[in-house]
Amino acid sequence: MESQKTIGIIGGGQLGRMLTLAALPLGFKVVVLEAKAGGPAAQAGAQEIIGGLYDAEALRRLGERADFVTAEIEHIDAATLEAMAKSGVPINPAPATIRLIKDKFAQKEFLQAQGIPVAPFAEITDEASAQKLLKKFGGKMLVKTRHGAYDGRGNMVVTSQQDLAAAFKLFGNAKLYAEAFVPFAKELAVMVVRDLEGRVTAYPVVETVHQRNICLEVIAPAEVDSKVQKAAERLALKTAKRLEGAGVFGIELFLTKEGKVLVNEIAPRVHNSGHYTMDACQVSQFEQHIRAVSGLPLGSTDLCVPAAVMVNILGERDGPAKIEGLADALAISGVSVHLYGKSPTKVDRKMGHLTATGPTAAIAKKRAHTARKKVSV
Amino acid sequence: MESQKTIGIIGGGQLGRMLTLAALPLGFKVVVLEAKAGGPAAQAGAQEIIGGLYDAEALRRLGERADFVTAEIEHIDAATLEAMAKSGVPINPAPATIRLIKDKFAQKEFLQAQGIPVAPFAEITDEASAQKLLKKFGGKMLVKTRHGAYDGRGNMVVTSQQDLAAAFKLFGNAKLYAEAFVPFAKELAVMVVRDLEGRVTAYPVVETVHQRNICLEVIAPAEVDSKVQKAAERLALKTAKRLEGAGVFGIELFLTKEGKVLVNEIAPRVHNSGHYTMDACQVSQFEQHIRAVSGLPLGSTDLCVPAAVMVNILGERDGPAKIEGLADALAISGVSVHLYGKSPTKVDRKMGHLTATGPTAAIAKKRAHTARKKVSV
Repeated sequence: MESQKTIGIIGGGQLGRMLTLAALPLGFKVVVLEAKAGGPAAQAGAQEIIGGLYDAEALRRLGERADFVTAEIEHIDAATLEAMAKSGVPINPAPATIRLIKDKFAQKEFLQAQGIPVAPFAEITDEASAQKLLKKFGGKMLVKTRHGAYDGRGNMVVTSQQDLAAAFKLFGNAKLYAEAFVPFAKELAVMVVRDLEGRVTAYPVVETVHQRNICLEVIAPAEVDSKVQKAAERLALKTAKRLEGAGVFGIELFLTKEGKVLVNEIAPRVHNSGHYTMDACQVSQFEQHIRAVSGLPLGSTDLCVPAAVMVNILGERDGPAKIEGLADALAISGVSVHLYGKSPTKVDRKMGHLTATGPTAAIAKKRAHTARKKVSV
Repeated sequence: MESQKTIGIIGGGQLGRMLTLAALPLGFKVVVLEAKAGGPAAQAGAQEIIGGLYDAEALRRLGERADFVTAEIEHIDAATLEAMAKSGVPINPAPATIRLIKDKFAQKEFLQAQGIPVAPFAEITDEASAQKLLKKFGGKMLVKTRHGAYDGRGNMVVTSQQDLAAAFKLFGNAKLYAEAFVPFAKELAVMVVRDLEGRVTAYPVVETVHQRNICLEVIAPAEVDSKVQKAAERLALKTAKRLEGAGVFGIELFLTKEGKVLVNEIAPRVHNSGHYTMDACQVSQFEQHIRAVSGLPLGSTDLCVPAAVMVNILGERDGPAKIEGLADALAISGVSVHLYGKSPTKVDRKMGHLTATGPTAAIAKKRAHTARKKVSV
């Protein structure tokens, strides 16, 4: 007799690992679909089904073994998930939401149709249309792939004919769209949790800092005035309300130099900009996601510290992983380190993160960056 | 090339599980020595060496595979551990400490020799000596086994000749000692962490409530005046300072009706009275223990909430485990649930615990007990 329910996660990387660590104390077993055995989630006790994210047969096996199916990534086989959902497998967020969000152009169209402010954007049909858009958007725009963009891949800033040609060469036959370059004052993010009944609740508005399109630093709460904070929260909640299915949604936003808040993009899952919740909130985004997709009540989204700053521990070389400087990092007050058990290390690969809490954002920031300089993987 | 160090834990039950959950984010692998495959720690990703706690061969294999060896229980083969330590295996706390503490009578003698106040106690050599002690201790005393006492096993309150005869029958040939019955006002506990250099730091003084000799409830911080609080902390730190080896020590204390603080007993490991730290402190006792035994710097022991109350989820029947009422428990503000993945359930078996935080101890207590009534395993 099986006393424990099973959470099935599509993807067994660091997000799957932290979801697993949150699911176990709630009495769940976890099974993940992962390309290679012994991944970050498996190291934390998840069973593995070995297969690709578009392996329909493996997805179906996951559905058979799990009581609740969710995903750590949106670049997956939405069609198979839709068929599984139709046959009764509880999948959250809804496959339709995953389908919508994995196409960044469709996502933007959806947001616009919902009256949610976004940066001007348009489809690129060919090089000629791209040239027109570059003129229309004032000589500077982003060329993005509609599908598969992730951590800086599939994005390019374009300011000239030469850039455009380079983008077309780089992205090959991928479907593209263009987005006006918004000279933002800050990038913000809000993690929203949505339960099976569609009720939504938001974590605090945070500031995110990117480098080479990869999240580098998250400051919680964001140092913005209360008008901006409220506008960001309102937009994030509205966005999550319009999507189908339960779970955590990472809503990334721009604060323009004119003080306007725009939605940049949605992640239908736990997100790097919410990692700080593990150390700064009573209930982490990972536990919330598990609660949400399994029909358990949501927990508090309040900060329980005055400020927290998260920085990613990105690989700085290519080679076997080697943890160094951990003791020096942990010697700094308020610092928590979360490593993902990955090897090898690669330049810019997410090997872990650390969060520093503190009485002010400035102190937390100093602690986090001092610690970050000490540790490498 | 092995990039990750391995923590070896003697015992893979709930304490081993929570140690494993704390070790993984610090980049460690975990291997546990456990009698039966698929235990609570293995479910969280620990590898298992199957063997008993007195299986010298299995202990040696654990020592070979681990960079740092520790234990979740003290009723283990101290002699083999001493030999392993001599041959260079880093074992913490020191095997000598484990040897001392597993013999409750030797433990009491040690405390007394260190000038640490304890309840009057004496060795029982035969039934006649026990009768004399019963008279000496005013007609009420505890008969305890020197070895193997745990969660109420090996303890008996004795007030008559008949009781004494029953105790001798129950404990058979076990070595016994007697302890005066202290009419305590409260039972207190302090979790102390000791690093490899012998530096010690204490978590807040908490109140523990026992029923049938099993920890039922822990109130953090204890509702005692600051004089008592300071005396308890001072005694706990002094006790941990006098022991060899690194790790968390659970120091259990009595507050007598006259306001005196006595040491009741020591656990050379993470302890049930410190589970609240997972939800109420920045760094849990489990992370502290991992940090301590692996030579990493200790973290903060401060509470980050005004109050927290932990209650155990004990089995209430015999049979296959079945998680019920979890949603109702989690619907209560401030409640976190930690289940151990055990099956079957048995009367008084520790199946999990929950912690409620709150603005006052009274509110946290109410939340915890309301939640406890909802959930069963």
